[in-house]
Amino acid sequence: MYRDRIRLNTLWGMVMSPEEAAMLIKDGMTVGMSGFTRAGDAKAIPLALAERAAAEPLRITLMTGASLGNDNDKLLTQAGALARRLPFQADPTLRAAINNGGVMFIDQHLSETVEMLRSRQLGPIDYAIVEASAITEDGGLIPTTSVGNSATFAILAEKVIVEINLAQPLELEGLHDIYIPTRRPFREPIPVVAPESRAGLPFIPIDPGKIAAIVITQKSDSAATIDPPDADTAAIAGHLIEFFQSEVRKGRLGTTLSPLQAGIGSIANAVLHGLIDSPFHDLKMYSEVLQDSTFELFDSGKLVFASGSSITLGPEAHDRVIPNIGHYKNKIVLRPQEISNHPEVIRRLGVIGINTALECDIYGNVNSTHVNGTHMMNGIGGSGDFARNAHLGIFVTKSRAKNGTLSRIVPMVSHVDHNEHDVDVIATEIGLADLRGLAPRERAQTIIRNCIHSSYRELATDYLKRASQRGGQTPHLLEEAFSWHIRARQTGSMLPEHRAG
Amino acid sequence: MYRDRIRLNTLWGMVMSPEEAAMLIKDGMTVGMSGFTRAGDAKAIPLALAERAAAEPLRITLMTGASLGNDNDKLLTQAGALARRLPFQADPTLRAAINNGGVMFIDQHLSETVEMLRSRQLGPIDYAIVEASAITEDGGLIPTTSVGNSATFAILAEKVIVEINLAQPLELEGLHDIYIPTRRPFREPIPVVAPESRAGLPFIPIDPGKIAAIVITQKSDSAATIDPPDADTAAIAGHLIEFFQSEVRKGRLGTTLSPLQAGIGSIANAVLHGLIDSPFHDLKMYSEVLQDSTFELFDSGKLVFASGSSITLGPEAHDRVIPNIGHYKNKIVLRPQEISNHPEVIRRLGVIGINTALECDIYGNVNSTHVNGTHMMNGIGGSGDFARNAHLGIFVTKSRAKNGTLSRIVPMVSHVDHNEHDVDVIATEIGLADLRGLAPRERAQTIIRNCIHSSYRELATDYLKRASQRGGQTPHLLEEAFSWHIRARQTGSMLPEHRAG
Repeated sequence: MYRDRIRLNTLWGMVMSPEEAAMLIKDGMTVGMSGFTRAGDAKAIPLALAERAAAEPLRITLMTGASLGNDNDKLLTQAGALARRLPFQADPTLRAAINNGGVMFIDQHLSETVEMLRSRQLGPIDYAIVEASAITEDGGLIPTTSVGNSATFAILAEKVIVEINLAQPLELEGLHDIYIPTRRPFREPIPVVAPESRAGLPFIPIDPGKIAAIVITQKSDSAATIDPPDADTAAIAGHLIEFFQSEVRKGRLGTTLSPLQAGIGSIANAVLHGLIDSPFHDLKMYSEVLQDSTFELFDSGKLVFASGSSITLGPEAHDRVIPNIGHYKNKIVLRPQEISNHPEVIRRLGVIGINTALECDIYGNVNSTHVNGTHMMNGIGGSGDFARNAHLGIFVTKSRAKNGTLSRIVPMVSHVDHNEHDVDVIATEIGLADLRGLAPRERAQTIIRNCIHSSYRELATDYLKRASQRGGQTPHLLEEAFSWHIRARQTGSMLPEHRAG
Repeated sequence: MYRDRIRLNTLWGMVMSPEEAAMLIKDGMTVGMSGFTRAGDAKAIPLALAERAAAEPLRITLMTGASLGNDNDKLLTQAGALARRLPFQADPTLRAAINNGGVMFIDQHLSETVEMLRSRQLGPIDYAIVEASAITEDGGLIPTTSVGNSATFAILAEKVIVEINLAQPLELEGLHDIYIPTRRPFREPIPVVAPESRAGLPFIPIDPGKIAAIVITQKSDSAATIDPPDADTAAIAGHLIEFFQSEVRKGRLGTTLSPLQAGIGSIANAVLHGLIDSPFHDLKMYSEVLQDSTFELFDSGKLVFASGSSITLGPEAHDRVIPNIGHYKNKIVLRPQEISNHPEVIRRLGVIGINTALECDIYGNVNSTHVNGTHMMNGIGGSGDFARNAHLGIFVTKSRAKNGTLSRIVPMVSHVDHNEHDVDVIATEIGLADLRGLAPRERAQTIIRNCIHSSYRELATDYLKRASQRGGQTPHLLEEAFSWHIRARQTGSMLPEHRAG
């Protein structure tokens, strides 16, 4: 009976099939499920739930850490099982259902969901469904490749269903640091003062009497889907490394920099990859997701410690790292996303936050989420937690998309996730704009000069000039502010027709 | 020689006239000046600087805590003395200069300015000019009615000029708690775990050798300019108090609520005033500015402690409170604005943040700063520090302005200072929208139903309906999103012409 995996023998009788466990979930319930950036999600029960929902009325509110793998969101959406979903997702099928109004999606800062649950502003949670590598002698849950919101889901939920995943190595034990902030109004400072700080327990402490079912699985996390670095992402990385070197020369950073955060995705991953050949050393990460580049930096000797909430790897890196996770264990800690993304800790450590923008405007406002101001892509994720509180809030994007028909730098972003107050630096493959200490008119000149693609520079310059004639701290022509977006919607290109040819 | 005011006798020889002291400031310098919400600003040297600037080239970068009184910003602007200004202002003359591009204004979260100075991302500061009630035997500066950024300005500046204001009572001593976060990467948690926590010194510790001049003044702070409560602000207060009662019934708040923050201005002041006749008790404040309502709450027995960065009062309250400040001293602490507004502390305490919106949109995004998306009003101030990290981020506004020709609830705000992720509740005199846990489409229905004025409700409903037909997480018609603003600019009213008559 998997004695090394279920060490509290009174729980052996709780093992059942995914279908049996899924029967515990009733129509209308709120479920908190493990999973963060495709790592450590439940593998069997979501499928069993989707099957049930296809046959009988079953619509739930589903909370997770962040995005799920294994087509969980896709299958649950197709079965009509999702009434509400929070705080993040990255699945095309679910995305379509969100955008047609079929699923209510609450897009949240990743640090905030459990804060709202704990103060009963969200919830209550009927069932937590948590993937674990093992259950301790006391009934504690040892997470797998992510912590996400699993700890608080399990602690607050009425009942807990555990998926013991035999494909996740037992060596994951000891990797996690489960610290939960104490209750207000007597909350103590969070005792995390460095990326390597350990403040909590290596397991999620719950009353084993709450465990309602245990399901055995043996299935790997879905692999990360990250595009390999290309000339543009390498150029962006180059601009940032040059900028960091300049900061060192000015005495603002040391050669070990400051703890690094990199959002999920190809560009941020490429920037970290670029640090392998940089003059910096003894780097540390205080991030949310540890991607391939984290382990490349470890192996190159550049990185000495990494704190995150999940490990999400491409297929090759997965096969190299996960079976040998013991080799990295003294260099890594996985925390609840509330702590990995906590304003208190990010501000204390002086993190350098590098996140991807969907589009930026000439004043340095950033849209991270809404295509054309209306259609959800994935969600804000942790970008706001980091950008607001970072020592340096950096956003990266290629200057153009869709064969140059879309500019990622526009007169006014069609949706604002991060405003000028939180955006210190913008980098595209064209160059880098250091916006610190600049007024909006100066920010616009800098961004247009350094970051926008040449095919859009004249258009942007003309807009800024005409807007400035009308005055203001942040000159705009409201009747033209979205003209690029509207043109793209009508003609397929932000470029005026006479230029498209 | 003011022995009780200048207790370090080696400094007695530094006393000079404002004109002599002002001569120390050279063209192009960066000056950090005391002053926060019209309280504790320098009274004499700004005038002397303005006189010099009228006669010779003198343009400086001026940093303060927040807004100044005594027409300081007006006189400096008229004299052409301001090249750059940060992080906040509230003066009509300076505002005009900012909006015509004559003064570069950097609008910042009030907690962040000194963080950027300390990490050398802004500055260096050549001179700090700080109002003090006294200088201690060791050369420490005892602030007056505000702390603002004065402590870090004085600590980081090359040289310090002190204005000893005899009109500020010596009893202010002991009111202040000067705690400065320790250096990264060894920063410790901020030891403020309750509004009444004291973590630092009662004076600003500086090397007395840095004091370059002492000027004696005797002039009161400018009085606050707050409109008295009216029927609309009373209605808003009523909606909020009803909401708090509902939160208590749901077990989300106790009858002592959670530490309160109220932004400067008539509406927030009226909301606090409304708590006098509420069933709540033993209230505490963790705010930035302590206004008339704070002392009314003290005197009514409702409030037991208030933490802030300044005391800004109307004329009557000033004359009642300031000469008797000793009476309140064990109930009040004034902190550096970095601490009063620190994300770490606000999140830890679970503050209820109540701030004023310039306009909101149907999805709950808030514009706090830019009239018509372009022209600066005052600045974001501390509203972002509080709204992002608060237990409850509440925004208040009257539903209409300018005799009903402007709706404060619009399809899309023309500038975003606080986005949907940070706005939990919106209240107008019409009603209150509780947006927690709602998806954008639901937020829009709630705001239109509860908050918008009836004369705009049909227009907003029509917009939402047509936008929703196009789909999306946050439905919009980009070509119409600013149509209300554009109509107001063209016709003077957001209402279509056939309704204006």
